[in-house]
Amino acid sequence: FEAEADRDRPDDETPEIGIIMGSDSDLDTMYGAHEALTELGFGEVTDYDDPPSSRFAFETFVVSAHRTPELLYVYGETARERGLDVIIAGAGGKSADLPNMTASIAYPLPVIGVPVQEESVSSVIGMPTGAPIVTVDAGKSFNAALSAVQILSRAHPELEGRLDDYHDELQDDVGSVSKRLHE
Amino acid sequence: FEAEADRDRPDDETPEIGIIMGSDSDLDTMYGAHEALTELGFGEVTDYDDPPSSRFAFETFVVSAHRTPELLYVYGETARERGLDVIIAGAGGKSADLPNMTASIAYPLPVIGVPVQEESVSSVIGMPTGAPIVTVDAGKSFNAALSAVQILSRAHPELEGRLDDYHDELQDDVGSVSKRLHE
Amino acid sequence: FEAEADRDRPDDETPEIGIIMGSDSDLDTMYGAHEALTELGFGEVTDYDDPPSSRFAFETFVVSAHRTPELLYVYGETARERGLDVIIAGAGGKSADLPNMTASIAYPLPVIGVPVQEESVSSVIGMPTGAPIVTVDAGKSFNAALSAVQILSRAHPELEGRLDDYHDELQDDVGSVSKRLHE
Amino acid sequence: FEAEADRDRPDDETPEIGIIMGSDSDLDTMYGAHEALTELGFGEVTDYDDPPSSRFAFETFVVSAHRTPELLYVYGETARERGLDVIIAGAGGKSADLPNMTASIAYPLPVIGVPVQEESVSSVIGMPTGAPIVTVDAGKSFNAALSAVQILSRAHPELEGRLDDYHDELQDDVGSVSKRLHE
Amino acid sequence: FEAEADRDRPDDETPEIGIIMGSDSDLDTMYGAHEALTELGFGEVTDYDDPPSSRFAFETFVVSAHRTPELLYVYGETARERGLDVIIAGAGGKSADLPNMTASIAYPLPVIGVPVQEESVSSVIGMPTGAPIVTVDAGKSFNAALSAVQILSRAHPELEGRLDDYHDELQDDVGSVSKRLHE
Amino acid sequence: FEAEADRDRPDDETPEIGIIMGSDSDLDTMYGAHEALTELGFGEVTDYDDPPSSRFAFETFVVSAHRTPELLYVYGETARERGLDVIIAGAGGKSADLPNMTASIAYPLPVIGVPVQEESVSSVIGMPTGAPIVTVDAGKSFNAALSAVQILSRAHPELEGRLDDYHDELQDDVGSVSKRLHE
Amino acid sequence: FEAEADRDRPDDETPEIGIIMGSDSDLDTMYGAHEALTELGFGEVTDYDDPPSSRFAFETFVVSAHRTPELLYVYGETARERGLDVIIAGAGGKSADLPNMTASIAYPLPVIGVPVQEESVSSVIGMPTGAPIVTVDAGKSFNAALSAVQILSRAHPELEGRLDDYHDELQDDVGSVSKRLHE
Amino acid sequence: FEAEADRDRPDDETPEIGIIMGSDSDLDTMYGAHEALTELGFGEVTDYDDPPSSRFAFETFVVSAHRTPELLYVYGETARERGLDVIIAGAGGKSADLPNMTASIAYPLPVIGVPVQEESVSSVIGMPTGAPIVTVDAGKSFNAALSAVQILSRAHPELEGRLDDYHDELQDDVGSVSKRLHE
Repeated sequence: FEAEADRDRPDDETPEIGIIMGSDSDLDTMYGAHEALTELGFGEVTDYDDPPSSRFAFETFVVSAHRTPELLYVYGETARERGLDVIIAGAGGKSADLPNMTASIAYPLPVIGVPVQEESVSSVIGMPTGAPIVTVDAGKSFNAALSAVQILSRAHPELEGRLDDYHDELQDDVGSVSKRLHE
Repeated sequence: FEAEADRDRPDDETPEIGIIMGSDSDLDTMYGAHEALTELGFGEVTDYDDPPSSRFAFETFVVSAHRTPELLYVYGETARERGLDVIIAGAGGKSADLPNMTASIAYPLPVIGVPVQEESVSSVIGMPTGAPIVTVDAGKSFNAALSAVQILSRAHPELEGRLDDYHDELQDDVGSVSKRLHE
Repeated sequence: FEAEADRDRPDDETPEIGIIMGSDSDLDTMYGAHEALTELGFGEVTDYDDPPSSRFAFETFVVSAHRTPELLYVYGETARERGLDVIIAGAGGKSADLPNMTASIAYPLPVIGVPVQEESVSSVIGMPTGAPIVTVDAGKSFNAALSAVQILSRAHPELEGRLDDYHDELQDDVGSVSKRLHE
Repeated sequence: FEAEADRDRPDDETPEIGIIMGSDSDLDTMYGAHEALTELGFGEVTDYDDPPSSRFAFETFVVSAHRTPELLYVYGETARERGLDVIIAGAGGKSADLPNMTASIAYPLPVIGVPVQEESVSSVIGMPTGAPIVTVDAGKSFNAALSAVQILSRAHPELEGRLDDYHDELQDDVGSVSKRLHE
Repeated sequence: FEAEADRDRPDDETPEIGIIMGSDSDLDTMYGAHEALTELGFGEVTDYDDPPSSRFAFETFVVSAHRTPELLYVYGETARERGLDVIIAGAGGKSADLPNMTASIAYPLPVIGVPVQEESVSSVIGMPTGAPIVTVDAGKSFNAALSAVQILSRAHPELEGRLDDYHDELQDDVGSVSKRLHE
Repeated sequence: FEAEADRDRPDDETPEIGIIMGSDSDLDTMYGAHEALTELGFGEVTDYDDPPSSRFAFETFVVSAHRTPELLYVYGETARERGLDVIIAGAGGKSADLPNMTASIAYPLPVIGVPVQEESVSSVIGMPTGAPIVTVDAGKSFNAALSAVQILSRAHPELEGRLDDYHDELQDDVGSVSKRLHE
Repeated sequence: FEAEADRDRPDDETPEIGIIMGSDSDLDTMYGAHEALTELGFGEVTDYDDPPSSRFAFETFVVSAHRTPELLYVYGETARERGLDVIIAGAGGKSADLPNMTASIAYPLPVIGVPVQEESVSSVIGMPTGAPIVTVDAGKSFNAALSAVQILSRAHPELEGRLDDYHDELQDDVGSVSKRLHE
Repeated sequence: FEAEADRDRPDDETPEIGIIMGSDSDLDTMYGAHEALTELGFGEVTDYDDPPSSRFAFETFVVSAHRTPELLYVYGETARERGLDVIIAGAGGKSADLPNMTASIAYPLPVIGVPVQEESVSSVIGMPTGAPIVTVDAGKSFNAALSAVQILSRAHPELEGRLDDYHDELQDDVGSVSKRLHE
């Protein structure tokens, strides 16, 4: 796996967003990020020799802080060189160290932590002064992806338009629900 | 106050980061953001007719979601036009609505919530799917500022260098503490 | 929707009680308020051109603080003019801002917050000094409606009689349960 | 004491708001209600033979649910006859029964519970379906008084004006704090 | 029902243990007390004109603190005269006032509180200094009955023997489980 | 110490109530039991060769479940033979095992657990079905003593009178506090 | 059972690890320890006259702190003489005293506590200064067994090799999961 | 610092116990481990060229998981080669990752986690299946040291004697406290 990470580095067409999670049991919860990014026009990189045609892309890996600590170090240390702009890191359990360790190692890349369960929130959010991480609510990987795109949109105005479009649809939904109450 | 907001809009030299808080009793806790931004070379805008000379800047306001809801609305709605890139919003108490409402109204600008007390964490972090906010730990306004600069640094590479410098100093500090133990 | 709110204002036969909730997923929980008010003889307004014939009435809307913040402002600001006397506002999640923001904007109308889940209680109840809200227990929209009628009954003595009748039936129920234990 | 309660009944000039608390150690916390009502022009009844001259008034008693259960019963049962419109009941500890029992006995008068400590919140708020109480946040007796006046204001429009005036002052305060930040 | 309570008073063959609960939904949880007492040879009084033949007996009632406060007062006040020695009082919800109010009113009879749910524990246990109640763990009505018999056994040595017999059986059970592990 | 326990056994004038605690740091909290028993006329046994002259008495020991487990065993096993009727056992910390282990070993004597800190409550109260203990609120050793006397009073009616007298004084106190409010 | 414990003492081929639990309802949770030890080549002793042929072994017993306190004392006191090196003690409920009491009585043998439920954690971990116990997370009996073998491995280097082998397999698993994501 | 770690490796006289902590603000809490080890005759290594003369020794370092992640990695990876037998790792805050990451990297060495604050407990204890750590209660570094010596004592019987001696003194202390109560 380390070899694969090395090969990626020279790759020009790397994804902007990296999604990692601590266990394959987190896949269901983290799928929300996949949904949100797809809805906003991002492609997923599954084969690094054949990147998706979309302008913006993301990648997904399973990296366990406690069972594969070396992998975590390699991923975090190479993230910036490989061209990532934001990392979304999800982990469950009471000792959800993956997001925090990734934020520490991949610094100064911004890392958005996703606590996979309610009990993971305090472990993910609780970084000491000087070691930044930002966090979304338990299980809200969909919102983590929206936040990641908000971050990218500061440099890529076209993404701001996509976020506005998504929001307009959302408001129409709430409006029509309220209207149905009166019919 | 609304007039002041209007006047700001055409202003070209607006700050990149807006810091707001729910009450003047939050000032001590939110001062960490001020410290971090100053340490990273940001200037504070105190007089909009006489902006600071530094390349990057921030502004600070007290806006109460529950006592001045109109003000909150005006601030959030005009944030994008006024040129802000990130908002840091701190609030205390169990019903810390300021960060969430700001994130909803200022969307798609990224908003970093700072729960001023431990009891404010769940209220700040708990947004529904589709309404993004990112949060730091209770009282960690210093880290919120670091995260805000991480976000800006995606478009402004020079900020990445400042973040790296800050980190190197931090690590030297930890090293020297450990060394002192052996003397 | 804003137009509809405007049109309502001159309407003389507005309902006394407004029920709002943050999402259509709250409908089941908030249905208790509907039950209680119906049991106490209130009619529901579903078509503002054709108000119910009962002396007292209520209306129901879905308004999301985080997804439709503008709608929340319009509803809260026009509530008093439109003739409402009490608002029952329910919201779920850890950041249940709808009741609080409504109480702030619709002030000085009394607002009764209904935390839709247990985790919503502290967010709903936690207003700062000077910004009043009253709250019922998680999911107790039935009791919120009873409280709303208690409030109305201070000006409308006939409602006091209805509340007494309801209570007598309730006590008979408890009595007959205890009696059944001995048969 | 029961005799005193009896004598009160025929009294025409009874106060609108009754404030009771479980122990004299709750006096400091409950003083906020006294402050708010005084600020809104209410008089305190201390001598029932010589009522205050103000149009609206309140009374204050110490009644312990666990140490003087009979007194609680008498107070609750005579409240309506004595002309009270709202009761504010504060209690501390983990088993803060005074507000709940008062709400049950004084029904259908509206009762606003004030949990004197954080640990009292769940005990005060947790009434079963059919037994209404409304609650404010721990220690927020000031807000309980504002809510009580909101309730009275539905029948007494002049009180609505006083509440608006109080709110305007409050907003001016927040505005001037924010302005000071820029000087 | 009050009449029934009056009639009971002269009754010589009253039960030693009174079991009360706040709602018929508590019956399943409180059934453990019934089981334990039956196992220890107590009879249940279901018809006061035809008491059970066993030397020791108990009675069961549903009494709601919040929905039938008068009934609670009558039950508590007449308990001592009617010959009860211990009361087991169960209640659920976050505001489980029945055990506490019964302990206050029936004083100096010992009252054993049974929190029907986990969330009821703090409300049941939290009495102020000077107002005694003793409590068992959530749902442990079986143990409450054992404790009630322990209390009675101080005056009735024959009950001490029954408690010893019950315990010996229990220990044999644990022993045989451990033995089965090795087969 | 074991020898001392042996010598006690034949002693006819043993105390009715045994007070034990897990550490001398619990002495302040457990002093409430001493106060209550003294107020109700109990004597303290400090020298077993020279018992107090009062009709009822108590003894006090420090016994650590975790640091002196053998002592705990001896105390619990000899309690019944030595003539104790009730044991009040206080312990602090999150693993407050002393009350539970004493209740298990001294069975079928009733044991009243006193959690010395709030965090000790769940550990003291949480016994499995078949292993009874009753508990008072954190730090409420005064109430534990009242409950112990309530238990003794079932066999000793004179104690019931003392409990009634104590209660009357308490109610007078509450009454006079309420009266002072009006002066 | 005591006789069986006595007979064991002279037995030379005693197991290194003793597993005890408070109730047969804990068997499912504690089965993880059985799995881990079997995977690492340990045999289970089920018949002390016919020990397993493997070099390292463990035994399993049900011992209830609250229902069979004497058994707990005998087990703890004889553990060292019988040749045990580590004890894994699991218990559930809020008052999970078995691990703590075993650690106190079997001292200085290391004891690893396994809280069977989440609510048991604080009761198991909370020992006072001077009374050591180490704890794993709720339900993690598998990890408790790994820790027990880590402890044994300090004296038996061959066990260190087995632990390394187990870990390598585990890492291969995580790697292959991540790889599958890209296919 | 890495150089220093390299140099240590060939060192034959390495300490048995390594103490690390996440910040110098943890020093006060972790000092208990220093006290316990000193009391049990361990020497502290402060200069690796001049090891202490005692047979058993320990070392102390400050290593921050979030601020110096590389240092953590080096420490954990070299621990086994350097001759450590047990690591005591303390960390504070809600995201106390140091003990967990050390346990993952230094595996199969046993690691005892010390949560420096109450809020750190769940983060330290919560490892996933397959990644062992054992934990003591918040702040109990003294007990962590006792447990570390218990682990060492399996291979070094002389340490067992020291632990027994320490325990005897402790029990004498409890005994004398109880005796003082009667004087």
